[in-house]
Amino acid sequence: MEVVKTTPEELLKGYKERIESLLFNGNSNDKVKGLYEPIEYLLQIGGKRLRPCMVLAGCEGIGGNPEDALHAALAIEVFHNFSLMHDDIMDDAPLRRGEVTVHEKWNANAAILSGDAMLVQAYQYLAKSSPQHLPKLLTLFNTTAIEVCEGQQLDMEFETRTDVEIEEYMEMIRLKTSVLLAASIQMGMIIGGASEEQHLLGYEFGLEAGLAFQLQDDYLDAFGDPTKFGKQIGGDILSDKKTHLYLTCRANASSSQLAQLDKWVGKTASPQEKIEEVKALFVETGAANVLQEQMRFHYDKALSALSKLKLTDEGKQLFNFLAELVHIRNV
Amino acid sequence: MEVVKTTPEELLKGYKERIESLLFNGNSNDKVKGLYEPIEYLLQIGGKRLRPCMVLAGCEGIGGNPEDALHAALAIEVFHNFSLMHDDIMDDAPLRRGEVTVHEKWNANAAILSGDAMLVQAYQYLAKSSPQHLPKLLTLFNTTAIEVCEGQQLDMEFETRTDVEIEEYMEMIRLKTSVLLAASIQMGMIIGGASEEQHLLGYEFGLEAGLAFQLQDDYLDAFGDPTKFGKQIGGDILSDKKTHLYLTCRANASSSQLAQLDKWVGKTASPQEKIEEVKALFVETGAANVLQEQMRFHYDKALSALSKLKLTDEGKQLFNFLAELVHIRNV
Repeated sequence: MEVVKTTPEELLKGYKERIESLLFNGNSNDKVKGLYEPIEYLLQIGGKRLRPCMVLAGCEGIGGNPEDALHAALAIEVFHNFSLMHDDIMDDAPLRRGEVTVHEKWNANAAILSGDAMLVQAYQYLAKSSPQHLPKLLTLFNTTAIEVCEGQQLDMEFETRTDVEIEEYMEMIRLKTSVLLAASIQMGMIIGGASEEQHLLGYEFGLEAGLAFQLQDDYLDAFGDPTKFGKQIGGDILSDKKTHLYLTCRANASSSQLAQLDKWVGKTASPQEKIEEVKALFVETGAANVLQEQMRFHYDKALSALSKLKLTDEGKQLFNFLAELVHIRNV
Repeated sequence: MEVVKTTPEELLKGYKERIESLLFNGNSNDKVKGLYEPIEYLLQIGGKRLRPCMVLAGCEGIGGNPEDALHAALAIEVFHNFSLMHDDIMDDAPLRRGEVTVHEKWNANAAILSGDAMLVQAYQYLAKSSPQHLPKLLTLFNTTAIEVCEGQQLDMEFETRTDVEIEEYMEMIRLKTSVLLAASIQMGMIIGGASEEQHLLGYEFGLEAGLAFQLQDDYLDAFGDPTKFGKQIGGDILSDKKTHLYLTCRANASSSQLAQLDKWVGKTASPQEKIEEVKALFVETGAANVLQEQMRFHYDKALSALSKLKLTDEGKQLFNFLAELVHIRNV
């Protein structure tokens, strides 16, 4: 067996640096600085660049040259940031990655229009792909982009609905989060020359890993290690967010448990007590267990797709590393 | 000479019907109706469908089959309506074509997100173009879409600026209005098989005609026939809009004329008197004459590009008819 010299961590670090070296060289018109400043601001705030790394990983993992996938990777990252800029207006979010959001730093109109320009810029990057792959990439990108809009629509609708089913929640996170991760890998694999069967498996891996990833985020919000989890523990509970835990808890609760849960909905006083009592209900109703089963279910499906992928040795290491990110050992 | 049986009016009417028959069959997901209802609402309000008709006219005028250009035409019309949906939020406009705007009928978030989905839908239509033309069409569409965003940015900036130059105003209307008309014709001609020299001339015709069209709109707002002009006469004057007339008037005014103009800025009382006095200043300072000269200048440039276009006989009639739309005989 060939000795693999580059570790997955090193590969991903290299991808991230390569992406960031190009990300800030987008087209810009000096006469219209006001349009481009919010774009540059949001892009330089940073982030893990997970999605564009998945594009390059998909391409190199299948044996292609990751340089060929750079434009597609930039398209994905700029699209992702467009969606953040607009979501933050809709969610009235004051902060993004610890920094002031664009609509707060400028105003809502600036965030609308600069976001629009970002969506077009994403297509400008995509248009630089080789003509051979362009029709397939464009169709996949379009489908995914519409689905991300649909996911955000469902997420907004859920805020005011009281009858959200678990199946609807899963559909929402599939659309809002997972399809973009899935399409990132698939686009990379298409550019890397994968067969249709192979790049569809790449999509499936990304989709299932993405679902596990989002469910893990729900789980960690309540039960994570405060020293490791990036956000405040219990944030979803305090904002009465209709997460997987919350919805399963409601569905499984006895009438007395339901009364206990309802007592806390909408309350902002005694936050620490609220978090502890609601977490206890998540455990008592079995919601925490159900969520762990679901995470395991999607993690296993991701591994099953992965086992059918014909990857290079380095690709295997890299994809196993990505899969491990959604496999929590402490649950 | 061949007898031309179909008049330009008949051709355009046929184009409009064909476009509208397809426009309401966009993709839609029943589970996410809330995303698609605002889109269908805005599209069915109507409008002249001028831009998609220009796509089909460009294609057929150069000898192509307009059916081949339908997807590109739909892309242009959906893009145009996306920009209207978002502009109306930014401009806080209560009405669009006499009907309640989307952000008023629903809310700003709905208009942001459904607008985003429309922009993606425009690319979905475009992606259905033949792979042979796709790279060229996509690049042109992207450049144009970014320019339209830049035009809206400048337009918003002008509202609060007091030092707008005529050249900047011309650049703003070029970006906000003309490039989309120009790209519409060029895209049709590319699909119709035109040489690069020819489809660039088509762009030039559309650009110059578009500039004349926008200047005409400025002119008619002040001096149009109230029985023919669709909007209220003097609307720009009442809202102190920095139009070509207004900017030239300021630039050419004597100090006493400037004082007279400034007296009215920001005033909402005595609207009829305001309109009459400001119109008189537009005439006395020569601004009305300068505008007529500018319209003639761009109209002539459009005709010059038209004279170099190798069109079918029907195409010649059609393009002359389109040129006449921006040629006001009564000025």
